[in-house]
Amino acid sequence: MTQKSIVVVDPHFRRMEEIFSPGDLARLHDTVQVVWGKDVAMPLEEFSAALPEAIAVVTAGWRYGDILHHASKLRAIIDLAGAFPRTLNYQQCYDRRIRVLTAAPGFARGVAEMALGLALSAGREIAAGDRAMREGTEGWEHAGNIETFSLYGKRVGFIGYGSLARCLRPLLAPFGCHISVYDPWLGAGYLRSQAVQPVDLESLLDHSRVIFVLASPTAENAALLSRPLLERIQPGAVLVLISRAHVVDFEALTELLLAGRFKAAIDVFPQEPLEIDHPIRQASNAVLSAHRAGSVREALWDLGEMVVDDLEAIARGLPPQRLQAAQPEIIARYTSR
Amino acid sequence: MTQKSIVVVDPHFRRMEEIFSPGDLARLHDTVQVVWGKDVAMPLEEFSAALPEAIAVVTAGWRYGDILHHASKLRAIIDLAGAFPRTLNYQQCYDRRIRVLTAAPGFARGVAEMALGLALSAGREIAAGDRAMREGTEGWEHAGNIETFSLYGKRVGFIGYGSLARCLRPLLAPFGCHISVYDPWLGAGYLRSQAVQPVDLESLLDHSRVIFVLASPTAENAALLSRPLLERIQPGAVLVLISRAHVVDFEALTELLLAGRFKAAIDVFPQEPLEIDHPIRQASNAVLSAHRAGSVREALWDLGEMVVDDLEAIARGLPPQRLQAAQPEIIARYTSR
Amino acid sequence: MTQKSIVVVDPHFRRMEEIFSPGDLARLHDTVQVVWGKDVAMPLEEFSAALPEAIAVVTAGWRYGDILHHASKLRAIIDLAGAFPRTLNYQQCYDRRIRVLTAAPGFARGVAEMALGLALSAGREIAAGDRAMREGTEGWEHAGNIETFSLYGKRVGFIGYGSLARCLRPLLAPFGCHISVYDPWLGAGYLRSQAVQPVDLESLLDHSRVIFVLASPTAENAALLSRPLLERIQPGAVLVLISRAHVVDFEALTELLLAGRFKAAIDVFPQEPLEIDHPIRQASNAVLSAHRAGSVREALWDLGEMVVDDLEAIARGLPPQRLQAAQPEIIARYTSR
Amino acid sequence: MTQKSIVVVDPHFRRMEEIFSPGDLARLHDTVQVVWGKDVAMPLEEFSAALPEAIAVVTAGWRYGDILHHASKLRAIIDLAGAFPRTLNYQQCYDRRIRVLTAAPGFARGVAEMALGLALSAGREIAAGDRAMREGTEGWEHAGNIETFSLYGKRVGFIGYGSLARCLRPLLAPFGCHISVYDPWLGAGYLRSQAVQPVDLESLLDHSRVIFVLASPTAENAALLSRPLLERIQPGAVLVLISRAHVVDFEALTELLLAGRFKAAIDVFPQEPLEIDHPIRQASNAVLSAHRAGSVREALWDLGEMVVDDLEAIARGLPPQRLQAAQPEIIARYTSR
Repeated sequence: MTQKSIVVVDPHFRRMEEIFSPGDLARLHDTVQVVWGKDVAMPLEEFSAALPEAIAVVTAGWRYGDILHHASKLRAIIDLAGAFPRTLNYQQCYDRRIRVLTAAPGFARGVAEMALGLALSAGREIAAGDRAMREGTEGWEHAGNIETFSLYGKRVGFIGYGSLARCLRPLLAPFGCHISVYDPWLGAGYLRSQAVQPVDLESLLDHSRVIFVLASPTAENAALLSRPLLERIQPGAVLVLISRAHVVDFEALTELLLAGRFKAAIDVFPQEPLEIDHPIRQASNAVLSAHRAGSVREALWDLGEMVVDDLEAIARGLPPQRLQAAQPEIIARYTSR
Repeated sequence: MTQKSIVVVDPHFRRMEEIFSPGDLARLHDTVQVVWGKDVAMPLEEFSAALPEAIAVVTAGWRYGDILHHASKLRAIIDLAGAFPRTLNYQQCYDRRIRVLTAAPGFARGVAEMALGLALSAGREIAAGDRAMREGTEGWEHAGNIETFSLYGKRVGFIGYGSLARCLRPLLAPFGCHISVYDPWLGAGYLRSQAVQPVDLESLLDHSRVIFVLASPTAENAALLSRPLLERIQPGAVLVLISRAHVVDFEALTELLLAGRFKAAIDVFPQEPLEIDHPIRQASNAVLSAHRAGSVREALWDLGEMVVDDLEAIARGLPPQRLQAAQPEIIARYTSR
Repeated sequence: MTQKSIVVVDPHFRRMEEIFSPGDLARLHDTVQVVWGKDVAMPLEEFSAALPEAIAVVTAGWRYGDILHHASKLRAIIDLAGAFPRTLNYQQCYDRRIRVLTAAPGFARGVAEMALGLALSAGREIAAGDRAMREGTEGWEHAGNIETFSLYGKRVGFIGYGSLARCLRPLLAPFGCHISVYDPWLGAGYLRSQAVQPVDLESLLDHSRVIFVLASPTAENAALLSRPLLERIQPGAVLVLISRAHVVDFEALTELLLAGRFKAAIDVFPQEPLEIDHPIRQASNAVLSAHRAGSVREALWDLGEMVVDDLEAIARGLPPQRLQAAQPEIIARYTSR
Repeated sequence: MTQKSIVVVDPHFRRMEEIFSPGDLARLHDTVQVVWGKDVAMPLEEFSAALPEAIAVVTAGWRYGDILHHASKLRAIIDLAGAFPRTLNYQQCYDRRIRVLTAAPGFARGVAEMALGLALSAGREIAAGDRAMREGTEGWEHAGNIETFSLYGKRVGFIGYGSLARCLRPLLAPFGCHISVYDPWLGAGYLRSQAVQPVDLESLLDHSRVIFVLASPTAENAALLSRPLLERIQPGAVLVLISRAHVVDFEALTELLLAGRFKAAIDVFPQEPLEIDHPIRQASNAVLSAHRAGSVREALWDLGEMVVDDLEAIARGLPPQRLQAAQPEIIARYTSR
């Protein structure tokens, strides 16, 4: 029997059992020889000692500095944090044929579920109706449906079309929504091949009854949804802010919501935890959630399953299939900000 | 050109514009000659005068007494209330070949959407998380996901498999749930043909992570979910009560929820409006809604569309296709209680 | 234990084991007390003797004359032939509350599969290509694809939208076809609710790349596809004739095919077996099949499963769910010819 | 306005109008400055002259030798032949960050359609039934269905799970088949994430009613389906050989078919054109096709659309999304044979 390949697993700030289901943890140990595999951060000297023999490093952020010249057997760096590490020397990875992979798509199903749940909660006023029941101010039947609407057949806009959008699309399919997409990093041909309509951002905001903000944060999209753009949103439409608060002018959003211009469901905030006296906490037409979309237990286990699946492939000399590989063009855009 | 057929449209307690979208209202008048067509209840003498010439009566409840011997041209009685009228002489209808049709399935899409929204709100704690944000007691990320769960791949139970269930099933399909059904009025073969698993009620309660109560009220199912049965529900599972409160022992349900035995989402109550001091209003593990599932505007318009579609068919001498026809065996069970 | 209900099962011209899988046959005997249950036709006097106690009769055609006044317990007459019997007194059935049910929808899946197979065989020239390979006249790669086309995204027309069409629609769904329907017995609203486009027959013929003839034969639709209408079909389009030859002017169809005007796939003929020297046998642009769409073994077993499922319901005093019930308006149109 | 990027388009042996629909051809010229763009092969000296300024080369095979050191702006080599070129220096491409892309997935939809059409033609004996109609030897109805079977609910096996399999899977979905997959280059976790069952090859052959050979040819899989393995196929099962004849022991296959051991549908042969007197031409239980699955007109245009979509992305400095990129591990296995 051949010796197992060595993989450094240093998940800190995540925890082993949060990432790996019992079944996947067993499979991980069957597949490769795990070095470290503990919840606390691996000391740098131990990492340095282990790196030369490792075929892969699994980690939540790259805290190890400029050390890849020692990584003679390394074939993959796998991110558990949910984004490509900023502190990594990608040129060196490309030169050394080390794949940089993120497990971010593993969060996508759980976030997509939450996005749908938030959209329904806003459109059908589920959270607001529940508050009213507790306060004894509820309206019954039609009296409780003056401002509500149903998703069926509505025009929906996606801002960003990455792994999250690809998981949300099938959840919306049985509602028969017409989906428009704004994503400057994807060609119109590709978007049409996904059965969505490429549009410009203004048109998306003008015409959508539900707008899902699904874009990853980049230098280019900071406060992309500026006050003038937010003002284009239809009265009564719902803005679901689920990827990053970075993408909107949050102050403008807060003011527009307090003025009752449209509805929203918000899972991400410019500062987390959110200030206790932030005025958005009182916006009655917004559903608020404390960055809880991606961290449901099963989502983290999805991520662990993908990591083990791809380590299985890498250990056998096959290309990974489930994690997302860093594309130089995209990394360049991230890092050029 | 032939004369249009006469149809009495007496929607009270519903309203014309609530039921018929502007487009369907125009189509209604194009298709048949509408008698009455007003929101207030039609006086009985006017109804009696119009009945002999009418091919159909559209109404929300049968308030006209034993009058069908005058209905010599009548081919259909169409209910807008959402249930077959209790006060109708069905034997007379069968003898006179008058179809009794209900628009109840028109509510099904809107109720199914709400059922999914409530299930997601309970499973992912969307309403509770929103309350916490307003009170400043929220847990962020994993700290806000201690008790949450995701629908993907879960075992789901349907109590009752009528039009509501048939609309809910496709909404759950992208989540890959395994659906078990308890419905004593349907054969196992039919249920399997619908790609659901027929099971007994005990097994459904024991094994489901989400339980949807979708059964219409009948004499047989009053308080069907008794205290001993409710006690079988798994800790942390979600009971979505969306068809009628009649089906559960509501007092037992309230106590079990206040004791934290499982979670719930409840749209229907034994008394509506619910007493202002009913203890369930304080159950923190329940999402509460003031009977708002079926009365979203678009659902009522779905219903109107179905009524006009079937009047179109009836006026042309064709069988109706969209409304639900009274089946003698089912009506007998309703009325024999 | 209560006594089982009595059901007369007289399947001739079909055979018991052709209709009922071993599993369904066992289930049939568990569910009801079967009288007769043999392949040869039941003698009339035995039938007369059994009828008064029977709750249902399962038969392939009604060969028993005017005898229903003896059928005091009868609740259903179930057809196995694939069409509502012409020789039955329907008024008497309605008066006595006897449901007339046909297992015709049980054939629909098998016929729909064949319809898709024939369409692909015509569009991609599978049968013609196979003949060429045997004759040594085949064209390789592009040379063999001069006249072929792919179904993806094409405009497709359905003539008739009954159980067969409802089974074919999902098989076409992954090809992303746009489906237009001509069915004079169904309202536009109902058709739109099925996600198909109601159109007139001329428009359907003018614009469809594949035309499926799915209509049941009636007095009204004899030779509905007349020579002038057939001449509207686009060059290179495919006509799939799968329900009944009755619906087309077969002589005109033959001539147009021999003239190379369009393509076809034909499973049904005006006379069966077809004359050995019928000229259509030489039409090189037609795929020919000897009325084999509905008689694949599994289709017949589908039908048996539906019969047992509904006998299960009827024996328990519940309405049948799977077989198709005779609608007076439709029967009237059948029988008024 | 900035100058357009330069792309060499040298499609020989394919032709421009066969690859690019009129719409995509216009879009190609809008997007980039096309050099060459003719059907005849580009002379090497012209190619050499154009290469230093080109950002991409679109070609059907690499006929230009060791010339990449001049390709200072090159970002992509795009294959139109349907397979990664064997004659390319991949190490040099990796070193120079030149992506090697194949349009092979563009063929996948058309091939998948043909695979389904062939499977239905074999299972339902459409081609054989058509031959019988022409010879006057056909069996009508059940007499023509003695050996046929329906796809619904059957166990199906895929040998290879690449782009072709991913296009075939949705076409089979409405038939409710259980799909098992043998693919030694993919992990079990990935396959399960695709809702297919990873199995070993023996088990797949033993249990599948329809077996689709979908694997690309490699050194490892020459005659993978050896005589002993072919002998495991169930009597009456269907082998659909659609990717490459390389994967089977074709002599053994021919003998087994002539012996009537199972059925087959074959689009690819060890020598093409096939010898005119090859005995398989007389196998009555095989559907034969002259390598016509991938070359249907629309499939080639799918491929052209993908090429233009990705040139659009590359010209804007974005990563390609639609074409398949060479993975070093896979290329190494191809070229190490």
